[in-house]
Amino acid sequence: MSWRWALRSLRSSRARFHGRSHELFFSTALCSARSSRISIYPENPTKVISCREGRCWGARGLHDVRYQLDLDRSSEEEPVDPFSLVADELSLIADRLRSMVIAEVPKLASAAEYFFKMGVEGKRFRPTVLLHMASALNMPIPWSATDNLFGSLSGDLRTRQQRIAEITEMIHVASLLHDDVLDDADTRRGIGSLNIVMGNKLSVLAGDFLLSRACIALSSLGNTEVVSLMATAVEHLVNGETMQMTTSAEKRCSMEYYLQKTFYKTASLISNSCKCVAILAGQTAEVSMLAYNYGQNLGLAYQLIDDVLDFTGTSSSLGKGSLSDIRHGIVTAPILFAIEEYPQLRKIVDRGLKEPADIDIALDYLEKSQGIKKTKELAAVHADHAIKAIDAFPESDNENVHISRRALVDLTHRVLTRTK
Amino acid sequence: MSWRWALRSLRSSRARFHGRSHELFFSTALCSARSSRISIYPENPTKVISCREGRCWGARGLHDVRYQLDLDRSSEEEPVDPFSLVADELSLIADRLRSMVIAEVPKLASAAEYFFKMGVEGKRFRPTVLLHMASALNMPIPWSATDNLFGSLSGDLRTRQQRIAEITEMIHVASLLHDDVLDDADTRRGIGSLNIVMGNKLSVLAGDFLLSRACIALSSLGNTEVVSLMATAVEHLVNGETMQMTTSAEKRCSMEYYLQKTFYKTASLISNSCKCVAILAGQTAEVSMLAYNYGQNLGLAYQLIDDVLDFTGTSSSLGKGSLSDIRHGIVTAPILFAIEEYPQLRKIVDRGLKEPADIDIALDYLEKSQGIKKTKELAAVHADHAIKAIDAFPESDNENVHISRRALVDLTHRVLTRTK
Repeated sequence: MSWRWALRSLRSSRARFHGRSHELFFSTALCSARSSRISIYPENPTKVISCREGRCWGARGLHDVRYQLDLDRSSEEEPVDPFSLVADELSLIADRLRSMVIAEVPKLASAAEYFFKMGVEGKRFRPTVLLHMASALNMPIPWSATDNLFGSLSGDLRTRQQRIAEITEMIHVASLLHDDVLDDADTRRGIGSLNIVMGNKLSVLAGDFLLSRACIALSSLGNTEVVSLMATAVEHLVNGETMQMTTSAEKRCSMEYYLQKTFYKTASLISNSCKCVAILAGQTAEVSMLAYNYGQNLGLAYQLIDDVLDFTGTSSSLGKGSLSDIRHGIVTAPILFAIEEYPQLRKIVDRGLKEPADIDIALDYLEKSQGIKKTKELAAVHADHAIKAIDAFPESDNENVHISRRALVDLTHRVLTRTK
Repeated sequence: MSWRWALRSLRSSRARFHGRSHELFFSTALCSARSSRISIYPENPTKVISCREGRCWGARGLHDVRYQLDLDRSSEEEPVDPFSLVADELSLIADRLRSMVIAEVPKLASAAEYFFKMGVEGKRFRPTVLLHMASALNMPIPWSATDNLFGSLSGDLRTRQQRIAEITEMIHVASLLHDDVLDDADTRRGIGSLNIVMGNKLSVLAGDFLLSRACIALSSLGNTEVVSLMATAVEHLVNGETMQMTTSAEKRCSMEYYLQKTFYKTASLISNSCKCVAILAGQTAEVSMLAYNYGQNLGLAYQLIDDVLDFTGTSSSLGKGSLSDIRHGIVTAPILFAIEEYPQLRKIVDRGLKEPADIDIALDYLEKSQGIKKTKELAAVHADHAIKAIDAFPESDNENVHISRRALVDLTHRVLTRTK
């Protein structure tokens, strides 16, 4: 039995498969199969009964699903790398972005291109997600035996879906420029933030410029639902930033408020852009909603881990000072979970976290609490929801579609395991 | 012969008619017929040979056109008042704007609605222009004898054209919010500017919010050319502000640079929105371009007079301190014309106009120069171009269409003669 067959049989019962054949294991949540070491995240949601070379059995909770897989070692494949799969296309998008943000007025041109220059384009996480979403939903297009993953797809549709990736990046960078003005940030992507380098005024104007260029690019797609969804994402970015900035003591300690803000600030842009990619592909409302759900849950998982890394990461790997949220009085999931365990922490938080001593006390509580662990678990739950959305996509026999779906699943994994 | 007949015969030879029958006169530029005193602006471009009660003769430059009009005194009519003609519709738009800018997040809601509240909606010049443009181009719609100027027009089309007026106001207010942050302004429309009242951060966010809401409203119109034109107008606002902010000594004294900046900052929004109104009406590219030309020239005339008023107006009538441009080192047309006459003024201007003494010297030069007069004349030339665009609109027998075209012409007059 080939690993492809194994993958398909696992898919049909909604369990997940990753990695090389002799490293096979699975879980209803997310499994890491990057090395021969077995790690299941969150801790052991799926009981792996036995896993040895070439054979694997597992049982899954109430469903009591059981598999026995005989693996064809000769069909071993590298695990998918979502970024390298679309590397060429990412370069194309980066080039086009640089040409899309050229402004007539010289100073505005320098400001607008600042974060699109070679080397400071960021992780390009959103374009990668969107390119794989485009491939994962390009059905029914006859599969052609080509080495180029996207060679068989409609060129025109693909270009329009790439445009969504470009527009998403423009909106994202516009929000970064304005957020950095609002937060008096001094670094971004390892270089000086634009507000520091060119001043607040040009940062505000460059952000507006990028929004207008994004809107012009959107209009060229000729789909008013797409324009509306992306404009809604901009509104949500503003909502999220305002919620963070103007929160009351009551709301600051509300998990519901935090999750709503997190959706607005981080998840809405990627969920709405995923939906746009599906709409352009001509998918049904139901499938488009699955694409949205994937983006939404991926975005939430991403931000939850970001909030963990703000406590556990190092300044160099974060690209901004560690503990930066709590030092700015911003309360995130780890602290909120810690308050649930230690209600006395609430009083410290309500004092505004303005004193270093209060921050130290909060960190002590956090350390002895399950705050970090519970935040990671919540992120894993959202990652699982994201995977379930991919699993619910319409069946396809297209190999490229499957590779892209695996890449989307792999991205949820990377979101959970990233350290920067 | 009724005044309507007189009007039509004058229109056909591209001269203009204003006012009550016994106050009739005309010019190829713009005539004021508000009182029995004859005033022609700019000074006497058309030689009025004779004008007495009930009869009027005129000659027009090279064309040597001559009219004799016998007026039917019984058909006297009030001159059009562009604002009162659309007062009800302006209220409707103001109400809808208030409902369109409601934000979920409370602080954002207060910030976004700030300049849409009753009493601080501003002059509503743009919506007035756009409503008359809509009526002026609603052909061929059968004329119905209704008191309601717009009763005979297509409700759906009219609503969509009103939406352009609403979107234009949202974009305009968004640009005001960001401009006031950039300029550290402290008053606007006679009240504290939002950056002073709620801070720079909320002003930036509220501006972004309005832009996103404008984009959502645009998408609901379902016309991608319209989305693109309005987004281009946003980009132009940013271009203009950046040009003003980052100008070099060389460019600061260039009339070409000044006019380009003025187009971007003031004329592009109204010209593009006029064009959108024409496009929604299903007009040809040629007619849509005439609508654009009207808006462009009206906008330029408006700003030129604004620049004059910054020198000649009083603080209370301007709603911002008089001489505010020159005190901020911003060089406008009156000073540029003065430099043409007195090149030695250039040196003073190049020093940056940072010292009160330098400003006084510049004002002395301005006073003895033709700067103010020449700026007014340039404004009149643009007003004339605007009128010519209206004159070139397709013929129509619809009375309402004619009233709206007269209103558009009247608006060019108001732009030239306004004192605040």
